[in-house]
Amino acid sequence: MTPQRGFPKSEYEARLARAQVLMREQELAGMLLTTESDVRYFSGFLTLFWQSPTRPWFLFVPADGEPVAVIPEIGADLMRQTWVKDIRTWSAPNPNDDGISVLRGVLQPYARTGGRIGIPMGHETYVRMPMIDFERLQGTIDFEDCTEIVRALRMEKSDGEIEKIAHICNIGSTTFAQAPQFVQLGQSLSDTFREFRRTCLANGADDVPYLVGGADAGGYSDIIAPPTDRALATGDILMIDTGSVFDGYFCDFDRNFAVGNADPAAARAYEVLYKATDAGLNAARPGATCRDLFDAMHGVIVDFNSNTGSVGRMGHGLGMQLTEWPSHARFDDTVLTENMVLTLEPSLNYGDGRMMVHEENIVIRNGAPQLLSTRAPAELPVIG
Amino acid sequence: MTPQRGFPKSEYEARLARAQVLMREQELAGMLLTTESDVRYFSGFLTLFWQSPTRPWFLFVPADGEPVAVIPEIGADLMRQTWVKDIRTWSAPNPNDDGISVLRGVLQPYARTGGRIGIPMGHETYVRMPMIDFERLQGTIDFEDCTEIVRALRMEKSDGEIEKIAHICNIGSTTFAQAPQFVQLGQSLSDTFREFRRTCLANGADDVPYLVGGADAGGYSDIIAPPTDRALATGDILMIDTGSVFDGYFCDFDRNFAVGNADPAAARAYEVLYKATDAGLNAARPGATCRDLFDAMHGVIVDFNSNTGSVGRMGHGLGMQLTEWPSHARFDDTVLTENMVLTLEPSLNYGDGRMMVHEENIVIRNGAPQLLSTRAPAELPVIG
Repeated sequence: MTPQRGFPKSEYEARLARAQVLMREQELAGMLLTTESDVRYFSGFLTLFWQSPTRPWFLFVPADGEPVAVIPEIGADLMRQTWVKDIRTWSAPNPNDDGISVLRGVLQPYARTGGRIGIPMGHETYVRMPMIDFERLQGTIDFEDCTEIVRALRMEKSDGEIEKIAHICNIGSTTFAQAPQFVQLGQSLSDTFREFRRTCLANGADDVPYLVGGADAGGYSDIIAPPTDRALATGDILMIDTGSVFDGYFCDFDRNFAVGNADPAAARAYEVLYKATDAGLNAARPGATCRDLFDAMHGVIVDFNSNTGSVGRMGHGLGMQLTEWPSHARFDDTVLTENMVLTLEPSLNYGDGRMMVHEENIVIRNGAPQLLSTRAPAELPVIG
Repeated sequence: MTPQRGFPKSEYEARLARAQVLMREQELAGMLLTTESDVRYFSGFLTLFWQSPTRPWFLFVPADGEPVAVIPEIGADLMRQTWVKDIRTWSAPNPNDDGISVLRGVLQPYARTGGRIGIPMGHETYVRMPMIDFERLQGTIDFEDCTEIVRALRMEKSDGEIEKIAHICNIGSTTFAQAPQFVQLGQSLSDTFREFRRTCLANGADDVPYLVGGADAGGYSDIIAPPTDRALATGDILMIDTGSVFDGYFCDFDRNFAVGNADPAAARAYEVLYKATDAGLNAARPGATCRDLFDAMHGVIVDFNSNTGSVGRMGHGLGMQLTEWPSHARFDDTVLTENMVLTLEPSLNYGDGRMMVHEENIVIRNGAPQLLSTRAPAELPVIG
């Protein structure tokens, strides 16, 4: 069953209400949001047009009242289809005043009466507007960081969000299960990726914006590269990692395959990562921290090879973006709670500069992790 | 013929040399770059991993010497495959110090001796790192805007860049020519988009990251929306606008179709836009400005309907991003030069809230515009 697109108005009202509680706790008069995911989270405004860097887009979320969109005129028609009623536009691009006057008109009444305005400035955020314009705004408005508010809200998913993520995870799992049909010995990695994308679209994905991986004799050494035109050969280990989307929500998991036959060292690495994932699944309970989750997976891997590499973390949050807070890492003491959607992503180094990474997607529900991806087989699968 | 992927080292040496001339003119000691396209332009570092907002990536381009990459360890293997030799990494994410110490180590020797460091802060740019970290850096380094340097370089394309853009434009044109095969009466717009993507991939696109459009009886009213599940009906005007990519370079053009039969008002609007494109093609010569180009197209449209809407411009630069500088708009007096790749994108309003947009891709060569997209037919084509 394909979930319905969009969300009912009640979803946005609930998000706003939660945000307003947190804003009052932090004594903020409102938050200024500038990125695709933050604007969409509070408005429902979904468009690929953000890929054009030309125009800034703003959503002001007040501690009292409803959101105000300050956007280029080209987006007005689409914004009117969301629940946002107060939409103020300008004819963009306009390098001399790209929305700054309109935005000041919204923010200054708060600033004048001492109201404090938040903007996400912390880890995993950026301010999406020209720095010159931001500094101009700072001339009249003192912004303070509100990353924690957005982070706290977005980490815990609603039923509607989980339904969309589960749907795209199913599509990803179905596509990986069809790999024996579209992965051929002698086929280039770029053609393999092309066939993955085509199959995943046919299975119902809206798009496959993220697709990386590698293939090489006995194992790969890089996990973020675009595909090369090198032909798949017997003895290769192939890894495909996808961030596919449905209605603006991502899956993010990978699969490993041995081409023709399984190199024993790779098969052993695979087993270790499977066990590390088991350990992650056992640890992923409400009340545990991301650090606990990291330690559980890391403990299995370090027994195999003390050189655990420096990818920096072993999984993360997932939802409107390919990667979201939190991080399964030593530095992250975020406590796991119900309705968090997470990846478990243990990785290790082996052999002569090889690495391997496994990834599954889960949601924490009823006190336990529930797999959203169909779990990878326990032994390194052979194809081609 | 599929162009070779990547560029020879000489391409990057030439880009660096041009940048260094401009940096010395502006008396800069170097430029700090933080975005996907700017980092890739000077390094060749190509990965979809930028979709993860978690980690910042930095490239320092000095006025003397070669670029220095300051990047998360996870990208080191891929960066080593580029021409960049000086690669400094840290284990990211690390919220307490996400590359800032390493970056300071690169920048401070310049700052201490009075060297001025540029960073793009102007129109169509943003600083891709947490604002808190940027403000921390600003505590020891005074950044100044260097948008004009990056803009001047990136606007004029090399032969190698033009070859890649021409290739993806050809793939886009081939795909649009096949529309009668994949657009069916009664098919939902989302399925139509899905088939466009699958066909474009089969034709050789690496990806179709941008695909927007609309369809409605007698015309559409929005040009940036994602597809709905509404079924295509006789009398609809369908518009599909694609930004497909090959090896990191975009095409960006659209096509309009009448489904079953052509609404007369839409057919008339189409003719006007065809003539406006003619006027744009006549005006797109070295020495003319973007304003001239705008005026040429706008003049045709205003004769048809004085309400020309407020999309803000009628085309733009094209290359590593879906939209780049310059803008065909009243405010932009950029002088057209050889090897600029541009879109011509006239649009108009008609009927009861309908709009129509045409888009072609061109390169300025040997004193004249050369079409990179196969030009749309002179009359509104009927399909389905």
